[in-house]
Amino acid sequence: MSAYTATVTVRLKRGVLDPEATTTQRALERLGFELEDLRSADQYQIDLDAANADAAEDRAAEMAERLLANPTIHDYTVEIAER
Amino acid sequence: MSAYTATVTVRLKRGVLDPEATTTQRALERLGFELEDLRSADQYQIDLDAANADAAEDRAAEMAERLLANPTIHDYTVEIAER
Repeated sequence: MSAYTATVTVRLKRGVLDPEATTTQRALERLGFELEDLRSADQYQIDLDAANADAAEDRAAEMAERLLANPTIHDYTVEIAER
Repeated sequence: MSAYTATVTVRLKRGVLDPEATTTQRALERLGFELEDLRSADQYQIDLDAANADAAEDRAAEMAERLLANPTIHDYTVEIAER
């Protein structure tokens, strides 16, 4: 067993309204910043032990499927690093 | 002016309680997953135009300082990519 950190990033799919991002973008613009677009995402860094990096990635992807992401509205990516 | 995407990741500093992460970790454990630790972060992808990558990074860092992060409890990182 080796120690890994899985970084799961959960984003809204294109076309899904993101009122939090819209509000944040407007607030930045009110502060005088110029920006074209802003998107927000949730990121989870998960420390886990697994036999190898593939096993760690599979487990983190299953966590995303079952709890961290809602497949109707979210896309997610998983990155694995040794810890 | 070139087009850049700045990725600002805002994390709680070590030692700051993160009840959302604790709740998420417990929910995963209840589903039968084994994990050592879980930390959550907010990520903002900001599309902006700037003279060069350094200027884009400076502007994104200023957005983090002024709005996206609370320096008392948060650390942040900025990554710049051409768009």
